[in-house]
Amino acid sequence: MLNFSEEELKQELETLNKEYEQYKKMDLHLDMSRGKPGKEQLDLSQGLLSVLEKNEDCFSQNHTDCRNYGLLDGLPEAKQIFAEILELSPEEIIIGGNSSLNIMYDTISRAMLFGVYGGEPWAKSGKIKFLCPAPGYDRHFTLCETFGIEMIPVAMTNAGPDMEAVKKAVESDEQIKGIWCVPKYSNPDGITYTDETVRAFAALNPKAKDFRIFWDNAYAVHFLDEKNDEKLLSLMQELKKTGKEDMVFMFSSTSKISFPGSGISALGASKNNIELIKKQMFAQTIGCDKMNQLRHIRYYKNADGIRAHMSKHAELLKPRFQAVIDALKTELEPLHIATWHEPKGGYFVSCNLPDGCAKRTVSLLKDAGVIMTAAGATFPYGNDPHDSNIRIAPSFPPVEELKTAMALFCLCAKIAAAEKLLKEKTNK
Amino acid sequence: MLNFSEEELKQELETLNKEYEQYKKMDLHLDMSRGKPGKEQLDLSQGLLSVLEKNEDCFSQNHTDCRNYGLLDGLPEAKQIFAEILELSPEEIIIGGNSSLNIMYDTISRAMLFGVYGGEPWAKSGKIKFLCPAPGYDRHFTLCETFGIEMIPVAMTNAGPDMEAVKKAVESDEQIKGIWCVPKYSNPDGITYTDETVRAFAALNPKAKDFRIFWDNAYAVHFLDEKNDEKLLSLMQELKKTGKEDMVFMFSSTSKISFPGSGISALGASKNNIELIKKQMFAQTIGCDKMNQLRHIRYYKNADGIRAHMSKHAELLKPRFQAVIDALKTELEPLHIATWHEPKGGYFVSCNLPDGCAKRTVSLLKDAGVIMTAAGATFPYGNDPHDSNIRIAPSFPPVEELKTAMALFCLCAKIAAAEKLLKEKTNK
Repeated sequence: MLNFSEEELKQELETLNKEYEQYKKMDLHLDMSRGKPGKEQLDLSQGLLSVLEKNEDCFSQNHTDCRNYGLLDGLPEAKQIFAEILELSPEEIIIGGNSSLNIMYDTISRAMLFGVYGGEPWAKSGKIKFLCPAPGYDRHFTLCETFGIEMIPVAMTNAGPDMEAVKKAVESDEQIKGIWCVPKYSNPDGITYTDETVRAFAALNPKAKDFRIFWDNAYAVHFLDEKNDEKLLSLMQELKKTGKEDMVFMFSSTSKISFPGSGISALGASKNNIELIKKQMFAQTIGCDKMNQLRHIRYYKNADGIRAHMSKHAELLKPRFQAVIDALKTELEPLHIATWHEPKGGYFVSCNLPDGCAKRTVSLLKDAGVIMTAAGATFPYGNDPHDSNIRIAPSFPPVEELKTAMALFCLCAKIAAAEKLLKEKTNK
Repeated sequence: MLNFSEEELKQELETLNKEYEQYKKMDLHLDMSRGKPGKEQLDLSQGLLSVLEKNEDCFSQNHTDCRNYGLLDGLPEAKQIFAEILELSPEEIIIGGNSSLNIMYDTISRAMLFGVYGGEPWAKSGKIKFLCPAPGYDRHFTLCETFGIEMIPVAMTNAGPDMEAVKKAVESDEQIKGIWCVPKYSNPDGITYTDETVRAFAALNPKAKDFRIFWDNAYAVHFLDEKNDEKLLSLMQELKKTGKEDMVFMFSSTSKISFPGSGISALGASKNNIELIKKQMFAQTIGCDKMNQLRHIRYYKNADGIRAHMSKHAELLKPRFQAVIDALKTELEPLHIATWHEPKGGYFVSCNLPDGCAKRTVSLLKDAGVIMTAAGATFPYGNDPHDSNIRIAPSFPPVEELKTAMALFCLCAKIAAAEKLLKEKTNK
């Protein structure tokens, strides 16, 4: 398409628009905006709901009656599972409530009001800044905005964040107190940080003594094929080699393992961090939902059980990811108007269109009944400087609907690209 | 005992101490420190665990698949139940996670960082102060200490807090931003605020425009006998009469209805407050545990169902409260060394011993194997100026153990009183 003449573009656009009008008549109502598991995925964990019934089911290994108050930091068995997933020891884990987003919010809220281990309250430390590898997870950015934390975008590469830029910023600016990372099957690119990237994180010498890496390992076991699972180097092991283990907060949850919103979550951190956080948490809660922890323990048994369960999720997700990739390859690649990373796990495909085409594509899709994540949402302040990136979430719709949605996606992307090219020609 | 001569006191003390030594030999291990439901109470809600099993069980009335993300402020059916319990409309309710303590923490945390409706962030408003009717709930006081909020004690009367003192303080000091209240079957006294007290709250004209009443209605349906349930006037209705409905935050939970730590909770507030809080919550969570909300809805059905369930709790609690009151009446009343309010609901009996006797009594109990709430814990900063108040939590131990513990409690109180009287005689 890039080499089309003005006349060819006009003709192409006319054809595309006719096709688009046909789609509009289909009265579609499809939602591809969020990384929500599909119904069949939820059905996989239905048995979770029946594992606790009788009185005697409600006791943990250490004879705690999980129906009553207690255990601020969670059941030992639940810690064990997350310790395996995050490659930490159980003492480095606090079990949280129904979502890791809530733990991240609480972690920043506590940092603001009380400070992290070894630091002053951020609320009394002037303007706080976070590095935000972008494209990234929109809710990380919402968190920063809510707390008035200034976001500094950092480019994502196929190896993870641009670590030269990270190092330069973190080591020169004392106001930079954190960086958001989704290190495995990143949101939205589906990129797993390379060993070199993880080691570069461990080698950081931040100007701020209370700098923290927010390591949101949301997709730790969310492979599309266990045999091809990408291995993430343990950041904690690397940090321990240089005695910098206080520099990271890790997050994980079962949101996309069991039921989103009814799962359990975990914070992972060094002994110093965990001790302080437990003290700070004392005012907040007597303990999170132990019954739900127990449900998860009984149903999945251990980290191996979770991985086996995740293979069932993968069977449902693989054809959906394939449908997205197939559409992009067939429809957009020959025209050279889209690039993407083909993920081996996670929940998204991140598609880059020609500059200035993302908003228009999402708008066309919306008018035809397909809701996508807002263009720009994958960037701090909703501002994609190239207006290029669109996050595609293939998990929720049934495969046939997804195929329709992707055909329409490609059509809209073509229209947006053709409009843009035509405008450029006309303006010349 | 108050009229005993020095010699009589010495003799009495010798007798009491001999008896105490006998108890010590019993090697007791009893915990009466917290308001924890007993095992039989927990068994009452066992059926809650089996109401969600099949796929079709997991949908709410509005066809929401509760196994997936969504519904920031909770299921409409859950709002309906708490609306009835708190005498609010469902629009005035946000459903929270597994504990109201967590909602209270979050409410103060948000007030600190972002401000309440119509106000600036408290963290930027100088030294914040709260009025603390005392004796009161120790965890309210812990919350204040954690956030660096100065606590000003206010006397509790049999009608509720000393409202003249409350009015005077609130209407003269702009730094007073809140007051803690447990308005029904208060912790620890078991006092229900009178209509006059509630109206006096509604009539407050606080100097601080962002002053809030923290109305922790933890024991709204926790009567010992439904026929004798004490009626609490609706503060929200009273506030609405004068257009001051933004002045209150209400809290409730099922912690002592279903399972502590695995229940659901609710925040009640005016439309203005709710709207702002929902906006602030967006960064924190995608929504609380809807599956657990659904469990509670299915099992208890509605507020009437909850009240019927609470009658079963009452059957188990009544003999325990009776054992406490009987012991106090038989052993301490004739000696004029204890006063208490006989509660018609709630979780505690609050016993006032002669000045200077509370710590000694709790210490004697501990040495004989009975753990009580720390003396002083019912006052801000753990400081009971009279060292007089002890909170008795009768719910957890089996009745026979409770009777033993109460016999020992009375014995220790007598020893402490005799020691004190003897010391006074000797010092004269």
